[in-house]
Amino acid sequence: MGEFELLARIRERLPRPGPRIRLRSGDDAAIAVPGGATATSVDALVDGVHFRREWSGLEQIGAKALAVALSDLAAMGAEPGEAYVVLGVPSDLDEDGCMELLDGMARVATETGTTLAGGDVTRAPVLTLAVTVVGHAPAPERFVTRAGARPGDALVVTGELGGAAAGLLSLEANEERSEWIARQLEPRARLEAGRALADADATAMIDLSDGLGGDAGHIAQASGIGLRIDATTLPLADGIADLAMAVSGGEDYELLATLPPEQLEAATIAVEKQSGVALTRIGEVVAGEGVEIRLPGGALLEPTGFDQLG
Amino acid sequence: MGEFELLARIRERLPRPGPRIRLRSGDDAAIAVPGGATATSVDALVDGVHFRREWSGLEQIGAKALAVALSDLAAMGAEPGEAYVVLGVPSDLDEDGCMELLDGMARVATETGTTLAGGDVTRAPVLTLAVTVVGHAPAPERFVTRAGARPGDALVVTGELGGAAAGLLSLEANEERSEWIARQLEPRARLEAGRALADADATAMIDLSDGLGGDAGHIAQASGIGLRIDATTLPLADGIADLAMAVSGGEDYELLATLPPEQLEAATIAVEKQSGVALTRIGEVVAGEGVEIRLPGGALLEPTGFDQLG
Repeated sequence: MGEFELLARIRERLPRPGPRIRLRSGDDAAIAVPGGATATSVDALVDGVHFRREWSGLEQIGAKALAVALSDLAAMGAEPGEAYVVLGVPSDLDEDGCMELLDGMARVATETGTTLAGGDVTRAPVLTLAVTVVGHAPAPERFVTRAGARPGDALVVTGELGGAAAGLLSLEANEERSEWIARQLEPRARLEAGRALADADATAMIDLSDGLGGDAGHIAQASGIGLRIDATTLPLADGIADLAMAVSGGEDYELLATLPPEQLEAATIAVEKQSGVALTRIGEVVAGEGVEIRLPGGALLEPTGFDQLG
Repeated sequence: MGEFELLARIRERLPRPGPRIRLRSGDDAAIAVPGGATATSVDALVDGVHFRREWSGLEQIGAKALAVALSDLAAMGAEPGEAYVVLGVPSDLDEDGCMELLDGMARVATETGTTLAGGDVTRAPVLTLAVTVVGHAPAPERFVTRAGARPGDALVVTGELGGAAAGLLSLEANEERSEWIARQLEPRARLEAGRALADADATAMIDLSDGLGGDAGHIAQASGIGLRIDATTLPLADGIADLAMAVSGGEDYELLATLPPEQLEAATIAVEKQSGVALTRIGEVVAGEGVEIRLPGGALLEPTGFDQLG
């Protein structure tokens, strides 16, 4: 199988392009008419680092690569637009395997309204995926960065925490905890929730890829403020008893955001309605710096480097 | 060295961002205000496939990764804008090595007016670079695709051919032919020439990555026309005697374009003035299909799969 034949077969299977695309892959570059402002992010997944082929089907790996990249756009409150994919193909992955990977990406692309607009295929020692995603907004100030949190803002999180880290432990222990394992292997980007939060005047936002403690620290640092988190309020995934799993476990890909307290009720209703997940207030923004996570008795919980892929 | 520390050190060394960038890497995504239309392309380079660390310095590898990606924008006649870089770092590449790679990219970025706007760093079994580049034009129809060649158009090529393939042979034979080796290891994107050709109403354009014969075939197929090439007119790199090297050797990264014959003189002057390289007429567009390369006696030369990296 040559590169050109594989690319031609890939192009045949791609879902229809979105309205911004004037020319899709097959030329030297894809042509788009963005309008307004773009948010662009790139994520790489490498076999043995971010996933394991013995744990994940190829369709799942393709879907996860695109979902993880789109999660960064969710955290900007962006409308997803285009994705550009590099596929590094090892010698033990045949053309049908590449098509399975692509089917997973195409499924997520269709679900999210993303156009697979271009890419490159190369040989590589292990399966490697690099995905660049472009999201859109009418103007640059409509994107929500990490830097706008203000003292007095409420700190909120979407969905439930700890499931992905618990799923990783289940996989490593060879257990069958399917709901956690699905959180680990089949993450979803909270795109609708991210746009609902942006519309509700969120002042800062990040997606939880490294774990609540660490990612909260990114908001605190970028915004020049402190965050107080009440550990008793954390929305733990079903069956999770260990707070550390929710605080230090990564890859939940939920959204952590700050917003004016008067927007809390409207944001909660909008997130629930548009994305089907709960929004939970877990703390507040204070003057100062750093992240404090307070346990029921008042003691502080230290976020630790928790076992995770990536 | 952690990922965050490396990313912070990288950000410190980046050249200043261009005017379209509102927020560079360090958040969930980079924010840009494109205006008009974008051309986006992605290219991956893998150690052992596209380069060899024993042949190239790390600065050269970084520079080549960006130059090769920008070559696709040159072939669209685009103004270079932003680059997003995935760096897959093997265990035997340390932080200083990563900085050398980055210095090569930063040099090419500065030379070409490209902003290194975002990226991702991950572990990988061998050095892997994936570069997404975004180029700009006031409107989508200002980009030159492969599909617009018309019978009667002149076929032109920039610069000289065969040097990169000869350089690869020199490296494999452990010879010291430095001017050819530089063509192989330090390709340049013909960005100014590409814009000059676009301004001169080029009807189709491609960059020569796979070799003249094969890349001419891409224009012929996309445009639904035939190409006649006169082998005696091919601008061979200094010291190249073997026509096959120019016809089937890849990685010269010169531009092959078609344009109305009445634009030929103006285009030649503009390319020479803006990019310092010659523009040579090597054939014409005819009705029909396929690529014919005619030797002095009138016999046809068959492009073959010539040894190349990638």
